[in-house]
Amino acid sequence: MNGAEILVQTLLANGIDTCFANPGTSEMHFVAALDRNRAMRCVLGLFEGVVTGAADGYYRMKERPAATLLHLGPGLGNGIANLHNARKAQSGILNIVGEHVTTHLPLDPPLAADIAGLARPVSAWVKTATDAASIAPLTAEAIAAIAGPPPAIATLILPGDAAWGTAEAKAATTAPAARPRKRVASDVIDKAARLLRSGEPTLVILAGPALKGAALDRAGEIAGKTGVRIATQFFSARLERGAGRVPVERIPYAVDQALAMLKPFRHIITVCTEEPIAFFAYPGKPSRLKPEGCDVLALCTMEDDCAAALADLAAAIGAQDTDRVVQPAAEKRRPSGALNAENLAQAMLATMPEGCILVDESVTTGRESFGVTAGAAPHDNIQNMGGSIGFGTPLATGAAIACPDRPVLAIVGDGSAMYTIQSLWTQVREGLNVTTVICANRSYQILKNEFKAVGAGVPGSNALSMLDIANPTLDFVSLAKGMGMSGTRVATAEDLCRAIERGFADSGPTLIEAQL
Amino acid sequence: MNGAEILVQTLLANGIDTCFANPGTSEMHFVAALDRNRAMRCVLGLFEGVVTGAADGYYRMKERPAATLLHLGPGLGNGIANLHNARKAQSGILNIVGEHVTTHLPLDPPLAADIAGLARPVSAWVKTATDAASIAPLTAEAIAAIAGPPPAIATLILPGDAAWGTAEAKAATTAPAARPRKRVASDVIDKAARLLRSGEPTLVILAGPALKGAALDRAGEIAGKTGVRIATQFFSARLERGAGRVPVERIPYAVDQALAMLKPFRHIITVCTEEPIAFFAYPGKPSRLKPEGCDVLALCTMEDDCAAALADLAAAIGAQDTDRVVQPAAEKRRPSGALNAENLAQAMLATMPEGCILVDESVTTGRESFGVTAGAAPHDNIQNMGGSIGFGTPLATGAAIACPDRPVLAIVGDGSAMYTIQSLWTQVREGLNVTTVICANRSYQILKNEFKAVGAGVPGSNALSMLDIANPTLDFVSLAKGMGMSGTRVATAEDLCRAIERGFADSGPTLIEAQL
Repeated sequence: MNGAEILVQTLLANGIDTCFANPGTSEMHFVAALDRNRAMRCVLGLFEGVVTGAADGYYRMKERPAATLLHLGPGLGNGIANLHNARKAQSGILNIVGEHVTTHLPLDPPLAADIAGLARPVSAWVKTATDAASIAPLTAEAIAAIAGPPPAIATLILPGDAAWGTAEAKAATTAPAARPRKRVASDVIDKAARLLRSGEPTLVILAGPALKGAALDRAGEIAGKTGVRIATQFFSARLERGAGRVPVERIPYAVDQALAMLKPFRHIITVCTEEPIAFFAYPGKPSRLKPEGCDVLALCTMEDDCAAALADLAAAIGAQDTDRVVQPAAEKRRPSGALNAENLAQAMLATMPEGCILVDESVTTGRESFGVTAGAAPHDNIQNMGGSIGFGTPLATGAAIACPDRPVLAIVGDGSAMYTIQSLWTQVREGLNVTTVICANRSYQILKNEFKAVGAGVPGSNALSMLDIANPTLDFVSLAKGMGMSGTRVATAEDLCRAIERGFADSGPTLIEAQL
Repeated sequence: MNGAEILVQTLLANGIDTCFANPGTSEMHFVAALDRNRAMRCVLGLFEGVVTGAADGYYRMKERPAATLLHLGPGLGNGIANLHNARKAQSGILNIVGEHVTTHLPLDPPLAADIAGLARPVSAWVKTATDAASIAPLTAEAIAAIAGPPPAIATLILPGDAAWGTAEAKAATTAPAARPRKRVASDVIDKAARLLRSGEPTLVILAGPALKGAALDRAGEIAGKTGVRIATQFFSARLERGAGRVPVERIPYAVDQALAMLKPFRHIITVCTEEPIAFFAYPGKPSRLKPEGCDVLALCTMEDDCAAALADLAAAIGAQDTDRVVQPAAEKRRPSGALNAENLAQAMLATMPEGCILVDESVTTGRESFGVTAGAAPHDNIQNMGGSIGFGTPLATGAAIACPDRPVLAIVGDGSAMYTIQSLWTQVREGLNVTTVICANRSYQILKNEFKAVGAGVPGSNALSMLDIANPTLDFVSLAKGMGMSGTRVATAEDLCRAIERGFADSGPTLIEAQL
């Protein structure tokens, strides 16, 4: 059996049955092995940022890694920005990066590059197969590294001769069972319980797996029992929210607003996260956002079992199921009038069906939407943990592959959408139920705000030319058409509601350019 | 004066007056400094692969570096593939990569990444400014590193506080003069002269600066005097060719064809390059392409003065101006009929005006064109030295910025074009005279060939799904329209000729989808 086939079979034996790919010559044996291993679903992206972002979206919804197939150093390079975002979201991904044949590499052919050097900044594990026989054990090792906890990215570099060389066929190698998440020590639980009972102003900040399922329910019971507030950082990897779920506040992006929100607290309890910090530093403003005198208790890290920790904490303070704070359903009024950030959010509230996956890369426009959609039908909210834009449309693609029965709504800034616009093509090719709303404000609006925030003064014409993207106007309906996707342009909230509903009703993907 | 302004002034003082940019928050002070330093032309790209590829194209035509402005690690990541290509082309580029404020970075904010780690694989020089005062000397050091020889890429990492901090304003710091290229020793010249006089079959392989101007003329005189053949590698960074210039053969891409071409030679003389090797390794085929018993003499490396070496060699064998082999003008017949690789090449021959800059990323389709266009009007041919696709449209953008009075023709495969399609927007924004012909064969045709070449057999349906990009069909006319560019679709050679001519006649950019 050749190395490529051993690799595909090892992936399948370990439950990795989806591969987002943009292959080249060095990956052709892997591609050939797909014909003999049809259980592996291979999804083509026309650009590697689509591939890696889709793998991130897949993991966030499926909680199981996908593989990526990338062509040498430059192929990996194109995928780095969304691997950065995935790393910060602690998504598990197995990158398979082709490499030149071992004897060819020292000749420094055109595509030779330091693949391992490029992989390390975005990978917890990087190794190179030496031959076909090394592939199964290395793949198992990579999969174990991905499992964590915390989950991580592994990059397996696969030279052409390892892929086409042969090794003895044997039973597929399975990765060792993932290390269980650690149980939080009782003294930490007790300390947290004492804080909660003290009546002093306390904020519980949740992240990662604490924003889902039983863990979130326990947090809601703790809040109901004690009156403490619970919040997320500004960005969350995946947040279950909406009517009937536990409502969670969001620490604002803008430093002054975040300081104001956090000012009342004497204690912060962190769950799978750290104390809140500013996204960027600004002259004369603090990087750490907690008020002076506020202490921070880490209830658990990403290596710990947060569901158990929150259950132990709830038990310690006597919080019960009936204490749980629950988000009431919001009244869904269909908004009207010329589109703006406020009625765009109301349109989301009015149209999102239960089970919707909302991928939020709306940048400036969508900051309004978080509050408005709190009482929407129960849905998942996926955000950009790494801050590198161009994440929305790839993530939506991968989330839709992971959850074919759930509609995906991607709200994406126009500037952001252009980094990885090739995602639309994959969505059409795979017939994914993704509705993409482009917030077309025709500028890097966030940078206009940031320009002031960093104390750079008032932008003149030369500076503004770096912040405006209105010349020429981006026509997203034509861009979608160019990739085989139907699109529509709307300027009113009524039309936006109708267009989103049509998008959900259509089994395939749709693009809506929302003119703001 | 703040650090960002010191940086811009240092760049201008050293002749760097063009900056390809995709800035973010950490680069806002640099953007603000543009308002007070209007001599700096800043060109916005909607994706960093456009930015870095344009800087490469600019260097290849201008032989002077541009700066790039990139946002943190992920922004650099998006630019890596075209920096890889630029590195292999030995183009000089100064990357300016914003970084978090020094005190903020240790808090590991979302966008924190190992910028230096990502930069090193594509940069000869990587340093981080420590404060505003460090910027001028570091920039001068970077510019010296870029000058080489050989020319190289430098990456200056610029923390926010270094950009907004102030330092004493003084006279702008200029980089030390570039090291002169080395003169090749006379014994090497003599050895080469003896080879040439021996009458034994000898191939001279030229690359880099040897493919232009006086160096190429001397090579043509040597060939005329001795009958030796002169060739390029399959890819060249920039080749001056066409009627009246010295004709140069091209070593084929396919291994068997390359072996056949090289078989007759007993000696190879390399000029600014190495012995020919295969692009990829294939089972049972050699990586080194020269025949057994063929020796290789390096006349000069990229650090040497190749024009002087070729002049010395010409003098040593008594070659004179009148010996020079000169390419006769080809008869320009307008081709007709359904488009194919052959008449597409004839259309290029028929339409390219003198001074045209031809950026060739035609991959499989365009391999035919090199021979056909040998006798075209004098032009420059720019090729992909690093082999990472997605280089054509960004390179064309940068070449057009460098040479506003020369028309640019970019011949790009459909698969390749999709990696960096955002280039079209910058071409419209800057009003560049770029005519882009998309070779729309609707597949990664090269991979279908490579699939067989690596011995992977015959692709089945699952494998073919990774090689075909016909589902859905890419409509490049709509994609162009989406970025404000007029486009046309042609299926015959007659229509292609007319469309290319209209493209050249129009002062702005045009896209032509050539259906093959």
